[in-house]
Amino acid sequence: MAIQNDKKDFVKEVADMEADFPQWYTDVVLKTQLCDYGPVKGTMVIRPYGYAVWELIQKQLDDRIKATGHKNAYFPLFFPESFLQREAEHVAGFAPECALVTHVGKEKLAENLAIRPTSETVICEMYSKWIQSWRDLPLLINQWANVVRWEKTTRPFLRTSEFLWQEGHTVHATFEEAQEETIKMLHVYREFVNNVLAIPVLIGQKTEKEKFAGAHATYSMEAMMLDGKSLQAGTSHNLADHFSKAFDIQFLDKDGARKYAWQSSWGVTTRLIGALVMVHGDRRGIVLPPAVAPIQTIVIPIAAFKPGVTEKAAELCAKLIKAGVRAEIDNRDQSPGWKFNEWEMKGVPIRLEIGPRDLERGVVAVARRDTLEKTEISADAAVPAIKKLLKTIQKDMFKKADSFFKSRIQKVGNLEEMRKAVDGKNFALANWCGCRECEDRVKQEMQATARNVPFEHKPFKKVCAVCGKPAVTTVYFARAY
Amino acid sequence: MAIQNDKKDFVKEVADMEADFPQWYTDVVLKTQLCDYGPVKGTMVIRPYGYAVWELIQKQLDDRIKATGHKNAYFPLFFPESFLQREAEHVAGFAPECALVTHVGKEKLAENLAIRPTSETVICEMYSKWIQSWRDLPLLINQWANVVRWEKTTRPFLRTSEFLWQEGHTVHATFEEAQEETIKMLHVYREFVNNVLAIPVLIGQKTEKEKFAGAHATYSMEAMMLDGKSLQAGTSHNLADHFSKAFDIQFLDKDGARKYAWQSSWGVTTRLIGALVMVHGDRRGIVLPPAVAPIQTIVIPIAAFKPGVTEKAAELCAKLIKAGVRAEIDNRDQSPGWKFNEWEMKGVPIRLEIGPRDLERGVVAVARRDTLEKTEISADAAVPAIKKLLKTIQKDMFKKADSFFKSRIQKVGNLEEMRKAVDGKNFALANWCGCRECEDRVKQEMQATARNVPFEHKPFKKVCAVCGKPAVTTVYFARAY
Repeated sequence: MAIQNDKKDFVKEVADMEADFPQWYTDVVLKTQLCDYGPVKGTMVIRPYGYAVWELIQKQLDDRIKATGHKNAYFPLFFPESFLQREAEHVAGFAPECALVTHVGKEKLAENLAIRPTSETVICEMYSKWIQSWRDLPLLINQWANVVRWEKTTRPFLRTSEFLWQEGHTVHATFEEAQEETIKMLHVYREFVNNVLAIPVLIGQKTEKEKFAGAHATYSMEAMMLDGKSLQAGTSHNLADHFSKAFDIQFLDKDGARKYAWQSSWGVTTRLIGALVMVHGDRRGIVLPPAVAPIQTIVIPIAAFKPGVTEKAAELCAKLIKAGVRAEIDNRDQSPGWKFNEWEMKGVPIRLEIGPRDLERGVVAVARRDTLEKTEISADAAVPAIKKLLKTIQKDMFKKADSFFKSRIQKVGNLEEMRKAVDGKNFALANWCGCRECEDRVKQEMQATARNVPFEHKPFKKVCAVCGKPAVTTVYFARAY
Repeated sequence: MAIQNDKKDFVKEVADMEADFPQWYTDVVLKTQLCDYGPVKGTMVIRPYGYAVWELIQKQLDDRIKATGHKNAYFPLFFPESFLQREAEHVAGFAPECALVTHVGKEKLAENLAIRPTSETVICEMYSKWIQSWRDLPLLINQWANVVRWEKTTRPFLRTSEFLWQEGHTVHATFEEAQEETIKMLHVYREFVNNVLAIPVLIGQKTEKEKFAGAHATYSMEAMMLDGKSLQAGTSHNLADHFSKAFDIQFLDKDGARKYAWQSSWGVTTRLIGALVMVHGDRRGIVLPPAVAPIQTIVIPIAAFKPGVTEKAAELCAKLIKAGVRAEIDNRDQSPGWKFNEWEMKGVPIRLEIGPRDLERGVVAVARRDTLEKTEISADAAVPAIKKLLKTIQKDMFKKADSFFKSRIQKVGNLEEMRKAVDGKNFALANWCGCRECEDRVKQEMQATARNVPFEHKPFKKVCAVCGKPAVTTVYFARAY
């Protein structure tokens, strides 16, 4: 049974997601208090509700990063501007958006300091001191930090001047080991976003045009937002020996020879919170998967003035908390309807209602945020039922997002089909000759970019969808955030 | 029985702590790989071993911050330089050491951006938007972040250009509630450093001269390092309405009147890691309390080539991990003696040795890092024995540090006694008239500063130890880091 609450008040203040998805997104992330705009243009405040989501993301991803043998460390925010120059592609990619500290108080510094847009340079400088021999390898370090990239166009969570992320930086004795690590972490990311964020992704290799500035090869996971656009949800780079040559990271190998080391780096950011909103949201607001919901179950007393209602609600909430469920009770003065709207907007997976009649009958009403279904369960069996339902919701949310994604991938054979697919809010899977000119043409004609090349990429047609020359691979084209 | 390992190799590379304590400190934090110097002068890299200590500090302090009703959030690294100007004392205190971003790439910014030395200003700017009515109060937010203060003289962990910390920022309806919060968090800090870091502290109020720039009143906890110097280990400020007036944080009170809000802020930093080293260390290296030891028990096979030894060591290590002990086994090629030195230097609370003879006799050797005592326990009962011993070590380390601290506090009646006390590596508890001139004189004559005024501060003599005028309070003077 669908819930019949009046949504007029909320809808009035939030844009229609069908008509203006980007505006719906902005309205929703602000109104749910996930975030706010900072005083400096392009900066963002992550408010307590949004930060609680980030903490749940951090904890569960950090566990996975540690389980694969990595240790956390912390490197400085600043490095000499000249560090950026050492790797030619890296400086071209990052220098234009790099924030520079030139003064402390009224004093000018002798050399400008760059604020990290990513930490390859400062970390490699340290690694060149720390690594002497093959015994020091592999070196597997991760950092949770803030980074700064001065973007022209910003959007909360998706693209802000400063953002939070984790960046893994590893060093290996061979190219093959670096490649293995690069792909391993891509799979760790995929498992994490699938099972924790309930977000399906396409994994594959970035094209030369789209790869990380300084990498030998970049791999990405691409998620599909509800408007059919792609969001790059995480990347993993095989840096080969590019930075080890620029920063002189050499080691004495078992064979007695000094060799340059091989590296990987990989990261995901606070934009994952934006992905959660854009993948699972609906016209009532956001919908959070239980694994990252700061409140998994909200308990709402109905006719709370009636004897026993508030007590029973509090008792149930306490039992849920004791059983490991992140539960809260809403005892505020507002009407139940107002509270239903608020917690639906904030995406709490389960709402429990307890009123005088429920009390008499020994039941509680259970409303699922993802399906909006409402059922009744026995009050005595509520705790195991809720725990089970949270698992069901987690799985169902992935299934729903996954079937949506799959329904929006279209194989295309030429530019016209590609345009139709992209205009229809789909990803276009196309055969491709592999040349940059075709990517540029697609970008120019329909503002779509090559998202990634799938690992199993047998061409399904013999020719490039853009230029008609022989195809060497398939690639996903889509508009992207 | 004390352990008889030869420490020659280690001692050769680390300064004698009696002769040159600051050099011993620097040698030890670098050699144990807690940290390293960053490429930019005054910056620091927190290496995996040091960062693991920080993660244990963070987790256990964060639990306490949340248990007292606070939520975490994240505010921007940057704010307009003009924000600093709004609170007169604040700008005087922080502007000279504030790092300024003036350019992005080659483009000059319209207004310089300050990098947070502390976040009162940017947070208050947001609070002025968020707070409307008494219903929004109290607002209890904490942030874990990096901050930047360009210090002339730096020392790893204790004073670095960038450091990590938490900063709580709360808003209340009355001065009294802000004061209550300020003192409450000081007590949360004290309980935390006592029970988790095993560090005793003196809590009290800072003098006007030493208070936070912009605060109405600052309270601190002061720890004593092994060289008798003080380290300010944490502060809690009652900001009164200073920032709410500067940033226009007003709320509509229950009585219908618009009022300025009242605030507190409080923080501890990565310098706590430095305190751990300087409070508990000895000539063999650092000594970590079990609660923040990344490795609580190191298992070392002796004559590992003998049948069964490595297997038994691995089995025991696995059992300890399963029981919740952070245990590791050291299977490297080096000699047992070399390993003993290394793990002692790194301050691992318990070392377990298992050799062929132990195996026959069903025992393992247990060495305590804090007392250097070595005993034998039954292999079968090892897990509960180790868990119990870890608790004992935690308590004993606090007791030892506490009795050291207490033995180094001297009541002084005049300047001569004060100098004698301070030269003898003590804190001097003195009566004081309360005037700034006497503080300045003590600073000038013996480089000691007023650390704090204890809460129970009945003068034990009638006159100020410095000027001889009537005393109004007692105060601790000490040299400080």
